[in-house]
Amino acid sequence: MDNSMRYQAGLEKLTRIDGEAGAAVIEALSDIAPDLGKYIIEFAFGDIYCREGLSLQEREVLTLASLLSLGGCENQLKVHIHAALNIGIAANKIVEVMLHCIPYVGFPRVLNAVFTTKQIFLEQDGR
Amino acid sequence: MDNSMRYQAGLEKLTRIDGEAGAAVIEALSDIAPDLGKYIIEFAFGDIYCREGLSLQEREVLTLASLLSLGGCENQLKVHIHAALNIGIAANKIVEVMLHCIPYVGFPRVLNAVFTTKQIFLEQDGR
Amino acid sequence: MDNSMRYQAGLEKLTRIDGEAGAAVIEALSDIAPDLGKYIIEFAFGDIYCREGLSLQEREVLTLASLLSLGGCENQLKVHIHAALNIGIAANKIVEVMLHCIPYVGFPRVLNAVFTTKQIFLEQDGR
Amino acid sequence: MDNSMRYQAGLEKLTRIDGEAGAAVIEALSDIAPDLGKYIIEFAFGDIYCREGLSLQEREVLTLASLLSLGGCENQLKVHIHAALNIGIAANKIVEVMLHCIPYVGFPRVLNAVFTTKQIFLEQDGR
Amino acid sequence: MDNSMRYQAGLEKLTRIDGEAGAAVIEALSDIAPDLGKYIIEFAFGDIYCREGLSLQEREVLTLASLLSLGGCENQLKVHIHAALNIGIAANKIVEVMLHCIPYVGFPRVLNAVFTTKQIFLEQDGR
Amino acid sequence: MDNSMRYQAGLEKLTRIDGEAGAAVIEALSDIAPDLGKYIIEFAFGDIYCREGLSLQEREVLTLASLLSLGGCENQLKVHIHAALNIGIAANKIVEVMLHCIPYVGFPRVLNAVFTTKQIFLEQDGR
Repeated sequence: MDNSMRYQAGLEKLTRIDGEAGAAVIEALSDIAPDLGKYIIEFAFGDIYCREGLSLQEREVLTLASLLSLGGCENQLKVHIHAALNIGIAANKIVEVMLHCIPYVGFPRVLNAVFTTKQIFLEQDGR
Repeated sequence: MDNSMRYQAGLEKLTRIDGEAGAAVIEALSDIAPDLGKYIIEFAFGDIYCREGLSLQEREVLTLASLLSLGGCENQLKVHIHAALNIGIAANKIVEVMLHCIPYVGFPRVLNAVFTTKQIFLEQDGR
Repeated sequence: MDNSMRYQAGLEKLTRIDGEAGAAVIEALSDIAPDLGKYIIEFAFGDIYCREGLSLQEREVLTLASLLSLGGCENQLKVHIHAALNIGIAANKIVEVMLHCIPYVGFPRVLNAVFTTKQIFLEQDGR
Repeated sequence: MDNSMRYQAGLEKLTRIDGEAGAAVIEALSDIAPDLGKYIIEFAFGDIYCREGLSLQEREVLTLASLLSLGGCENQLKVHIHAALNIGIAANKIVEVMLHCIPYVGFPRVLNAVFTTKQIFLEQDGR
Repeated sequence: MDNSMRYQAGLEKLTRIDGEAGAAVIEALSDIAPDLGKYIIEFAFGDIYCREGLSLQEREVLTLASLLSLGGCENQLKVHIHAALNIGIAANKIVEVMLHCIPYVGFPRVLNAVFTTKQIFLEQDGR
Repeated sequence: MDNSMRYQAGLEKLTRIDGEAGAAVIEALSDIAPDLGKYIIEFAFGDIYCREGLSLQEREVLTLASLLSLGGCENQLKVHIHAALNIGIAANKIVEVMLHCIPYVGFPRVLNAVFTTKQIFLEQDGR
């Protein structure tokens, strides 16, 4: 596989998962660090998300758990909460994934993630 | 539900998941901090792992992603890699979960987790 | 002790410590993740804060040091700076606790915590 | 060297590096935690930045990598992106330093840092 | 105060708190990074631990909470568990401080700290 | 550029930088997670380390600062301390890079990094 195919496969995966929100991140990078957008598409989505062995829904809930546990990634959580909803993960499952992490990371990071989720749900209801 | 029921439910869940390794952690705490073992059983396993909304296998892979992302939790990863194998998660799926986290946490924490996994696989093959 | 007693004891402790700010967090969770609020009351306040061996003031300053060291928990720091003031910890002692952490966590996380504290002090003076 | 000399050397270094932005941080601390400002000047700038063995430009790019990797330090990153520009580090080198960290810390923390950089570049262009 | 006085004050404080263990850390640094040892004495112990506003025992329990929350600092925890015992903090209070942090940092980092403590207690009983 | 060229370029860069130590990491992954080794070569070394804009020596010192600041990456620090020495960075400059990070990450993570460095220097002197 050459790199243009990785890019193409990654872009399709990104669009499939994140819809407009993912494309908006890449676009926002185009003036300051276009290669960062390229690596996200090629490596994160082209190499990793295109792997077999886990379903897309499994990958998204793992992403939520990883971002929540890392801390300080509320902007990335927003993109991936949208992505999770977008690929058909139920809203209450998203919250359940976050509650599962309490014993491992404590309440503060879970609270940050849940309030980020609440904000997204409120924005969607407000449309 | 009273607390003795939470404890009982948690202990059954812990035993179901972790087998001997989980019980060994609780036992190791019995002289220095028995309440820490009690909270792990009551809260982590009785309250959280007994919740509905996610299967046991879904919970274990989330735990692996959370511990890996947190960093510095190799001992807890060992317990939960054993647990994952114990409840029927395939060895290559465990590794796949870890590879999925590369874009979010970088290579070093994934390397630490994968080498911890390798050590466990080698110990099991050596039996 | 049954669970309703844990909840009741935790709620009293939370109200005693955090006053309105703690109740506001629980209320804000009621639509999206009511169990998260329940666990905070039952486990964090009912189980942990109700333990003997440390005074309430000792627990609050430890909470400030833990949240500051964790990083990215400015919202939780706000609640617990209010709590610390509420249970009679002097404003300059709160700052002193934060300065003590410099050698362990470096200046940036201490700066984040101190500026969060300043914002609260300014809001209170502005009342 | 007595302490007033450390303070003086640190203040000169801080002013040389950060210009107004550094002085503004110290000033913002003067009412709530003046000693925190003093330690930043004496220790961070007087002791560490005045050491030999690394050029000022080398120190600033290391600072960017350290703050980015730590996470949750966007306010401190702002000060040091300004500082880096101020001492003559090219804008595209600042971005390059951040991209170099992707394999070690993952995309989210690099994205946070790059978007913080973009905000500063936009503010400067808007002047 | 000139720097030799800061060093002297810090060294006395370090010796008072950590006894031999602290001196051993400084000694171990003498060939590779003597200035690191000097900064620990001058800044951490001379500037910070010599401040008023918190008792030495208050400072040590804050240090334990900060190191535990930071994660990956088991070697430093060992030095400060010894220090805490050395200045008269009861063994069960050290454990209580660690249990207090569960809601903020989760079980894994508390388990790491408690097992580090257990190891020290066992070594002391074995003398 | 197709992927086999990325792999080839990355492998040459890895060999140039890390010598045997880097190859040993990849080899150790070959049975459990060969794709992880492939990504390290293709992405970390082929894409990132092969970028222009920073010299190889600049990249290595940034790597040291990033790994030190992340915490819990002592094994990766070992590989990159060897790498830094291998490409001609002086031993005292490696230590200087670590001391520079004290104000940002605090003493514990710097101590962990410096003692890791000392261990490597001792092993080399012992040859």
